[in-house]
Amino acid sequence: MVTQQDKMQRKGGRTARLAERINGPIIHKPALVSKVPLYDVVNEEGVEQIHELAMRIVEEVGVEFRDAEALEIWRKTDAEIDSSNVKIGRKTLLELIESAPTEYMHHARNPDRSVLVGGRSMVLSPSYGPPFIYDFEGIRRPATLDDLHNLQKLNHMAPSVHIAGGPIVEPLDVVVPHRHLHMTYSSMKYSDKPIIGNVTARERAQDTVDMCSIVFGKEFASNNCCTTSLINSNSPLVWDATMLDALKIYASNNHAVMCSPFSMTGASTPASNIGTMAVVTAEALMAIAFGQLVRKGAPMLFGVPAMTVALNSGAPVHGSPDSAIVQFLSGQMARRYKIPHRAIANCATSKVPDMQAGFDSMWGLFPSFLSGAQWITMAGGIMEGTLGVSYAKTMIDLEQIDAFYHFCQGCYFEDIEEIFETIQEVGSGGHFLGSAHTRKANLFIFPSQNNVPYEQWELDGRKDSAQVGLEKAKNWLSRYQTPSMQDDVDKALQDFISQRESELSINIE
Amino acid sequence: MVTQQDKMQRKGGRTARLAERINGPIIHKPALVSKVPLYDVVNEEGVEQIHELAMRIVEEVGVEFRDAEALEIWRKTDAEIDSSNVKIGRKTLLELIESAPTEYMHHARNPDRSVLVGGRSMVLSPSYGPPFIYDFEGIRRPATLDDLHNLQKLNHMAPSVHIAGGPIVEPLDVVVPHRHLHMTYSSMKYSDKPIIGNVTARERAQDTVDMCSIVFGKEFASNNCCTTSLINSNSPLVWDATMLDALKIYASNNHAVMCSPFSMTGASTPASNIGTMAVVTAEALMAIAFGQLVRKGAPMLFGVPAMTVALNSGAPVHGSPDSAIVQFLSGQMARRYKIPHRAIANCATSKVPDMQAGFDSMWGLFPSFLSGAQWITMAGGIMEGTLGVSYAKTMIDLEQIDAFYHFCQGCYFEDIEEIFETIQEVGSGGHFLGSAHTRKANLFIFPSQNNVPYEQWELDGRKDSAQVGLEKAKNWLSRYQTPSMQDDVDKALQDFISQRESELSINIE
Repeated sequence: MVTQQDKMQRKGGRTARLAERINGPIIHKPALVSKVPLYDVVNEEGVEQIHELAMRIVEEVGVEFRDAEALEIWRKTDAEIDSSNVKIGRKTLLELIESAPTEYMHHARNPDRSVLVGGRSMVLSPSYGPPFIYDFEGIRRPATLDDLHNLQKLNHMAPSVHIAGGPIVEPLDVVVPHRHLHMTYSSMKYSDKPIIGNVTARERAQDTVDMCSIVFGKEFASNNCCTTSLINSNSPLVWDATMLDALKIYASNNHAVMCSPFSMTGASTPASNIGTMAVVTAEALMAIAFGQLVRKGAPMLFGVPAMTVALNSGAPVHGSPDSAIVQFLSGQMARRYKIPHRAIANCATSKVPDMQAGFDSMWGLFPSFLSGAQWITMAGGIMEGTLGVSYAKTMIDLEQIDAFYHFCQGCYFEDIEEIFETIQEVGSGGHFLGSAHTRKANLFIFPSQNNVPYEQWELDGRKDSAQVGLEKAKNWLSRYQTPSMQDDVDKALQDFISQRESELSINIE
Repeated sequence: MVTQQDKMQRKGGRTARLAERINGPIIHKPALVSKVPLYDVVNEEGVEQIHELAMRIVEEVGVEFRDAEALEIWRKTDAEIDSSNVKIGRKTLLELIESAPTEYMHHARNPDRSVLVGGRSMVLSPSYGPPFIYDFEGIRRPATLDDLHNLQKLNHMAPSVHIAGGPIVEPLDVVVPHRHLHMTYSSMKYSDKPIIGNVTARERAQDTVDMCSIVFGKEFASNNCCTTSLINSNSPLVWDATMLDALKIYASNNHAVMCSPFSMTGASTPASNIGTMAVVTAEALMAIAFGQLVRKGAPMLFGVPAMTVALNSGAPVHGSPDSAIVQFLSGQMARRYKIPHRAIANCATSKVPDMQAGFDSMWGLFPSFLSGAQWITMAGGIMEGTLGVSYAKTMIDLEQIDAFYHFCQGCYFEDIEEIFETIQEVGSGGHFLGSAHTRKANLFIFPSQNNVPYEQWELDGRKDSAQVGLEKAKNWLSRYQTPSMQDDVDKALQDFISQRESELSINIE
């Protein structure tokens, strides 16, 4: 008979093992090189039909560049410019696209964390842009700089996240003109992974590059990719001056830019996956071509954070089969143009980290990984269709990222003889738990999921995965160690921030 | 300014639209014919390596048939029989397998609900076997016959569920010897879709066939597939007498049998996706071959409800990347042998319908649909690694099934000219919400998900998806209508049950 004491001892053993897993050393996995095949949702003829539609859009409808300087740059080509509308022949466009690299090295301040982006190499970056945090009590409130630092730390510790991020969350307690300085510093200080640049104004992009010059040296930071930044078009078919200014600053320094139309199928793009993909392709290719005019060979990414709109209410929706199809299509189009592909992972529309949050996120995860996206943003935590980020969901999502990293290792055939011998040895009716082959096995089990029997789960306190996620976030933060940074570099960054703050304060008054 | 009254009016409009969607007519979708490509996780050489390993198992290790009658049947072949161990040459095995049909018609008592299983046709069936219900208050308790009826009704109303099921939940308030009669009656009475047969004893399988004879006529029910039933091996490499008895009864009447090893990678099968698939293949093929010896041409399915074991605790785990890989492999092997493939959809290991429940389920959904499984069990509701079924999760899962049904329609290219004209018309900076093309669009939006803005969600009562699911279950049950059944058939079924109950009561005393 099993006594309560036995149970407690067993629990002790289990708790100890759990603690061991949770308190293990911090691991940083290399960029993922997937060994599983890619998934194509349409055939080559389908890709060509979307391409043809996109080409008709750039040739016959045109894309607006609402920026005088950009229009001047376009005038160097045979583009047909009417007010801010730019139409361009496919020949010129595709020639420009060809000069964008198929892969590039994104440098980190710690060279061990630099990653190759493009080709077979896949990297993951944190959430991007939400103004609200779902905090340690699960309460939704405006995010602060402390939240940004916390999320920076958690993502730094996440094994399968390769990028430090930029605006993992928007710190609303810092005044807007100063905010980008503290956000950039946060990503440089609390992680030593590659960072994402600020794009909210020309001078802020320049400040980001200047801070990179402090860390990497001016010569290096002017000619090598030290940030990847993310610009969104105003779909349909508009690029505004703010985004184009950021593109110009980064591309002219040879930093990478994701040209990633923020599509909402049914609202900002046609209510069709094919139509959405064609509009997005036209917008992204025009921005990439423009970037090549700014600096030939500057690295650019192609992609779309696909969303759908609820046609009865106009509400944007993450986690839908139509968005998943667009995500797969986006990978196919990016491969056609030989540009690295950007996708989105863990985005939920729900307002609590509930069952829907899990389902929504998976509609992004499978398409991101199986489309071979070389850059996957939103690695964790997104709620409310990108308006919020949750500590609880961040931790559960990051485990899913680890699981997909494992999935992408595919099947291992090399031990097939040993497997046969083990099957012979175990025979019919036996079990494999104790065999030598099993003891060295590499199966993926989520470290914090509720896999124990119901009674054990009750003894453990009846926790749902949101509670488990919150506890894990607190545990990680208690174990976080700031990666080292040279004192003089740190001081120079802080001096730069102080100086810029005083210059920019004029704007606040 | 938006007043509270405006808000309420808006809410009224929204609530009315929601009610319209929720209270729409009951739709029964046909079997899914997927238009998206299948996903292969290994190449042809990989499939052949697994095949070779499986063949070495059947030839050199053998599979146990713990049933004297089954061994007698095997003696008709050149199998090498040692005690209950059966070894067989691949030539004989594969010849037998070839006589199993690649597709079959599964008849429903309402001919409009009969479905083709196999080939390009995919069908979905409800949860299978859990003894616990997570009820309308979200409380876990032993399930009752009323719960079975309720789940029968919900699945009958689910547009993308094609099969009425059998043991959607185990009614623990009915004594074991009588239980199968009431379960079979429940599936016949409360749905008119095709049913799943009982396999827990030879006489219970016979009772199921006899009840089919009442509904379909004896001659028809003895020669046509009126049930599909599910038998599990005792992995590794054992078939027991109970399962084989059920197989014999059903196959001899030309009803379909799923030969579906209940694998737990790392425990009942090797700690390897390749090794697991080889063991499962050996077990399934041996049962399918045996079925062909019972009645040549009897329909059989190949498949595996893939699970992984937590190596540190031995706990079985649903929702893991390794199980997903096995599910994809299983589809590839089934296609190699030209046998319809069975997979599992919405299984969660969690004990509450939480974020984990969503993630776990999706690790089954994507592989099931993208592997082209012709029969997908566990369409909705599974908790606790198949020990429980939840009303709340059932409803949310069933929406996901609808979403995958939509996903599998793939891309629509036929309106590409109209799309281009719409893009021209909307132009840059416009929006597509009001265009004629959008108004007839077919985008999939989950009917009950939280897609509204946060403030609206608060006004709506801050519901998580578990609450939404429970409300939807109650709404559906209030709208359920029992499909018609001829009075004399109903009476004959009830008389049969009464008679069998009195005969079987001897066993209870």
